[in-house]
Amino acid sequence: MKLLALIALCAAVLGLVVAVFLATWIRKSPAGNDRMREISGFIREGAFAFLKREYKIMAIVIVVLALLIGFGLQSVTTAILYVFGALLSVLAGFFGMNVATLGNVRTANAASQSGMNSALKIAFRSGAVMGLAVSGLGLFGLSVIVVALDLGTVVQCVTGFGFGASSMALFGRVGGGIYTKAADVGADLVGKVEAGIPEDDPRNPAVIADNVGDNVGDVAGMGSDLYESYVGSIISAITLAAVAAGASGGVFDEATAAIFPLIMAAVGILSSLIGIFLVRGKEGSDPAKALNLGTYIASGCVIIVSIILSKAMLGSYAFAIAIIAGLAVGVAIGKITEIYTSDAYGSVKKIAEQSQTGSATTIISGLGVGMMSTVWPIICIAIGIFAAYYASETVGEGMGMYGIALAAVGMLSTTGMTVAVDAYGPVSDNAGGIAEMAELPHEVREITDKLDSVGNTTAAIGKGFAIGSAALTALALFASYAAVTGLSAISLLNPIVIIGLFIGAMLPFMFSAFTMNSVGRAANQMIEEVRRQFRADDGILAGTTKPDYAHCVDISTQAALKEMVVPGLMAVIAPLAVGIILGPEALGGMLAGALAAGVLLALMMANAGGAWDNAKKFIEGGHYGGKGSDAHKAAVVGDTVGDPFKDTSGPSINILIKLMTIVSVVFAPLFVHIGGLLG
Amino acid sequence: MKLLALIALCAAVLGLVVAVFLATWIRKSPAGNDRMREISGFIREGAFAFLKREYKIMAIVIVVLALLIGFGLQSVTTAILYVFGALLSVLAGFFGMNVATLGNVRTANAASQSGMNSALKIAFRSGAVMGLAVSGLGLFGLSVIVVALDLGTVVQCVTGFGFGASSMALFGRVGGGIYTKAADVGADLVGKVEAGIPEDDPRNPAVIADNVGDNVGDVAGMGSDLYESYVGSIISAITLAAVAAGASGGVFDEATAAIFPLIMAAVGILSSLIGIFLVRGKEGSDPAKALNLGTYIASGCVIIVSIILSKAMLGSYAFAIAIIAGLAVGVAIGKITEIYTSDAYGSVKKIAEQSQTGSATTIISGLGVGMMSTVWPIICIAIGIFAAYYASETVGEGMGMYGIALAAVGMLSTTGMTVAVDAYGPVSDNAGGIAEMAELPHEVREITDKLDSVGNTTAAIGKGFAIGSAALTALALFASYAAVTGLSAISLLNPIVIIGLFIGAMLPFMFSAFTMNSVGRAANQMIEEVRRQFRADDGILAGTTKPDYAHCVDISTQAALKEMVVPGLMAVIAPLAVGIILGPEALGGMLAGALAAGVLLALMMANAGGAWDNAKKFIEGGHYGGKGSDAHKAAVVGDTVGDPFKDTSGPSINILIKLMTIVSVVFAPLFVHIGGLLG
Repeated sequence: MKLLALIALCAAVLGLVVAVFLATWIRKSPAGNDRMREISGFIREGAFAFLKREYKIMAIVIVVLALLIGFGLQSVTTAILYVFGALLSVLAGFFGMNVATLGNVRTANAASQSGMNSALKIAFRSGAVMGLAVSGLGLFGLSVIVVALDLGTVVQCVTGFGFGASSMALFGRVGGGIYTKAADVGADLVGKVEAGIPEDDPRNPAVIADNVGDNVGDVAGMGSDLYESYVGSIISAITLAAVAAGASGGVFDEATAAIFPLIMAAVGILSSLIGIFLVRGKEGSDPAKALNLGTYIASGCVIIVSIILSKAMLGSYAFAIAIIAGLAVGVAIGKITEIYTSDAYGSVKKIAEQSQTGSATTIISGLGVGMMSTVWPIICIAIGIFAAYYASETVGEGMGMYGIALAAVGMLSTTGMTVAVDAYGPVSDNAGGIAEMAELPHEVREITDKLDSVGNTTAAIGKGFAIGSAALTALALFASYAAVTGLSAISLLNPIVIIGLFIGAMLPFMFSAFTMNSVGRAANQMIEEVRRQFRADDGILAGTTKPDYAHCVDISTQAALKEMVVPGLMAVIAPLAVGIILGPEALGGMLAGALAAGVLLALMMANAGGAWDNAKKFIEGGHYGGKGSDAHKAAVVGDTVGDPFKDTSGPSINILIKLMTIVSVVFAPLFVHIGGLLG
Repeated sequence: MKLLALIALCAAVLGLVVAVFLATWIRKSPAGNDRMREISGFIREGAFAFLKREYKIMAIVIVVLALLIGFGLQSVTTAILYVFGALLSVLAGFFGMNVATLGNVRTANAASQSGMNSALKIAFRSGAVMGLAVSGLGLFGLSVIVVALDLGTVVQCVTGFGFGASSMALFGRVGGGIYTKAADVGADLVGKVEAGIPEDDPRNPAVIADNVGDNVGDVAGMGSDLYESYVGSIISAITLAAVAAGASGGVFDEATAAIFPLIMAAVGILSSLIGIFLVRGKEGSDPAKALNLGTYIASGCVIIVSIILSKAMLGSYAFAIAIIAGLAVGVAIGKITEIYTSDAYGSVKKIAEQSQTGSATTIISGLGVGMMSTVWPIICIAIGIFAAYYASETVGEGMGMYGIALAAVGMLSTTGMTVAVDAYGPVSDNAGGIAEMAELPHEVREITDKLDSVGNTTAAIGKGFAIGSAALTALALFASYAAVTGLSAISLLNPIVIIGLFIGAMLPFMFSAFTMNSVGRAANQMIEEVRRQFRADDGILAGTTKPDYAHCVDISTQAALKEMVVPGLMAVIAPLAVGIILGPEALGGMLAGALAAGVLLALMMANAGGAWDNAKKFIEGGHYGGKGSDAHKAAVVGDTVGDPFKDTSGPSINILIKLMTIVSVVFAPLFVHIGGLLG
């Protein structure tokens, strides 16, 4: 087992080495003229100012939670692994953001010097660094734990590592989501609407904050979300390994069952590396094709190797079915997301059409699209669960839950590639912003716009994937929760479970209300500040004085960190309170309720937001009167509502459901011990 | 037992006699001048045109479903009771709508002749007829069944009666909801926004359809919804009576346990009668006070008698606790709804304030309010379930679910009063419309506006109550489902249950998407027609030619009946499909998922809609620039989005969750027999 864990460790290290290699290559690429470097310097500064402030708070949270774990559960090892998991998450975010803020300006420069192909290469490789950092550091941490500790300790304490990942993802996704939308909405409402200056205009004081937000929210936030899923899915499989080994009737032992997900994750990293190096755009061709090809090749590699290893290590092809089911669900949800959010299909066109009768019909039809878009992803998830569970059950009764965990591992195995494709979007977006602010020739902006537009689709797909992976990971962790508590059933005929279910279903709504209001408040502050700067100095709008970018960056930073306190506390306290007061069964009901309602709400919000965004772009493309028409104005309202939907509240729900589940798993022994004060 | 059932029957008949007496009194009241009678004649005609068309489709549905029950379940009795339940629901709707369309013009006339007090009296008594028809006919039907059949047959077949109520409620709530909002949105968008004529202006071709809609949606639709809950809660208690008797250890027998809810319902009718006759407005005083007083007195009577009867009939005070818990939850949800939707509190003011920065912020803050408004109702429901269950469990283990059913019975016992207060609103609203169209003096409109504004609050409260009662009723029926299927557990650790849970949680979103899109489509048709009429004849806007009201009524009628086919089929087919394909446990998961997600979504939509409505009115009251200001325009967008939220999609979810549960209870024997094709 230790040997196999060392192999996984090597794959992880290889992924990290390649990441460093790519990062160095990016750093060495030319960064353009002085103006470009100045602007990208502002963005970098802003990003690091945010990180610095965030780290101070993270440090406090890490210490407090480590103490809570150490004393509450009397387990120093769990507490240490918690800190380890948290630090690696922070490191992945730092690494990814560092490179993304180098890649943006170099992408813009490549677009101006060598054209689309070079620009795509730099933007994608910047994303690839984030992807490899996420999967490499995740697998690195877990392999080190498995190598260093005995199996019993690993199973008992590794959930601490997952809790570390989850608690930091809260900062990345929720804090980052509030940051990016406060800046975006603030910049748009005053700059575009009130002052009438274009997007990414350097006269807009919030423009740097907006570009920083792309990195904070879309690169680091997305990365921390998938890091959490990645780590959580593997941890879940490890904790269910004993159950699986028991059910196998001696065909394989617990150690093999525990190491198998790590090996599959290693296969995933190697496959992602192959995929990443095969992404090459051709001058004049659609960049989306190159990106898709990479994804398909990476997935194909995982599928083939999973079939071989499933039989070789666990004695049956059944587990390959579970892994393939997970991968297939991920790809399917991505495709469905595209259908509902891309203007190549009917839903977005319908919203654009409805914009002609005003913003009310834009909103209604967008919400309708968002709600309808939940149907097929849920059916895919249901089929995936069904296939993974029952395929594994054929091997031995009781094996099914391990199969579901493997499905999650399968879905997330190509995280390196998925994050690369996803993070490429905000890098291109930033490149476009820099091109605009540095007043590069129009052709440059055309290239970055092309890259950005593909990036918008990949971002929407990435959001769907993130939700799907959160659902499967949370479900797998839910199975771990049952295993750890030793509950043989969590029955809906027990009213305490129903009470838990209701409370659980309510939490994503409450959480979304918090995060949406947070964006509203923070955006208002930003609006006030931009207005104040315009009023204080006429030279800003005239283009003769530089606005005070740093102050806007500061507002977003402060607001993000302040506003995430309440939802963050809620996500940690809710499972603790229900577990302690109503007992472990009620908590099981709560997790299931939050999972089901949360996935639905997240899908609805993310897809409605994506659809509104592209309906606006569709109109801007010259339909229904084009830019400036009444239909366009209505569509802008839809897009503005969609902003917090798709970039703050929707994705934040992923964190909520995973974080609450991992808190429950970690503290399960405590709940069992107390047994529910009212139970 | 038969004797007690006869007593219940007498109470039901008494309620109906009073209803007839009140109806006669209303009919004899003066109906105003020729113009008023002409207008109210149009509204009556339109309402009956809708009913007539609806009855044809209902007849087909009744025959098809009766055959499905008769052959599918091999039970002629169940099929007959189904028809009986359906016909009584239709009768209640007919009776209530008949009187409401008489009461509207007489309310307007009373306002012009004798002032506020008399107007309130007529409007309220019109509502009371609907309330007494709903509770009287519900209890009448159930008492007749209990008197006529032996207990075994009753328990086995009475669910058919509930299915009858549910399937007709689908027409009332979903069809009615689409009707009323198609007319309302259509009338507003072309009339108010495009042509710039005021609300309820007789030049607007859709104005009659709009007023018909108040009766179709808000009187008949609400009535059918609560009729379904009323009947469903009692049926659930009856089906759980055997379990309860067994758990009582011989203290009471099944017959007593089965008759107790009927007796409590009878007490509720008598209490409602007392409450109804105590509602008297004082000239110059707030009508809301009179209405609240009636509700509190009716509830107080039920509480006192429940304490006595619980001990006398079932040997313990515990069941009174269950009943009181249900009543308290109903009142609490009403109050919470008021807090989130009335402009006397912060949430509505906040939305109004946010309207200053445009419609996007109006929408975002309204959705935030809607989401946040779910928290306390869910906590109240959770506490209610907890109290009802554990109080009953103290009497004997296994008694808890019967206690939950009694909580639902308790909550709905004062339905007569609740519906009266609720249906009073649309009657006043109609009265205002008639006053406007008949060009009565300004003071008359002031009185009806005052009544209408109170009616808006009571309508919002009624919506909250309807959702709460749907939740408790569906939960009680869920317990019946478990009892009928004989499932001892529906465990969330069984993946088929999780699959069911996911699918169930998805259904309310899908259903809402259908109903929202339906309103959009139907409203568009209405808009086209109104525009066409304005174009075809300039005399309409000049006020010299009468518009073609009937055509607009026809469009709403046709659209409503056509658009409800898909969501209606979905509500019946989903439980059948899941029950047959995935088996009874998966179906249990589905029902729980739909219940939890559905209640949340319904609360969010109803309260967001109510809050937007009142935020608009708050601005119209002179805040943030008042009518015509930019803030007002933004608030109108919120109100337009809120219309289908609060009057179509939100309330329709009540029907979805109850209908799916009752379908599952009725066809449970079939699912158990098949055992799930994939199970």
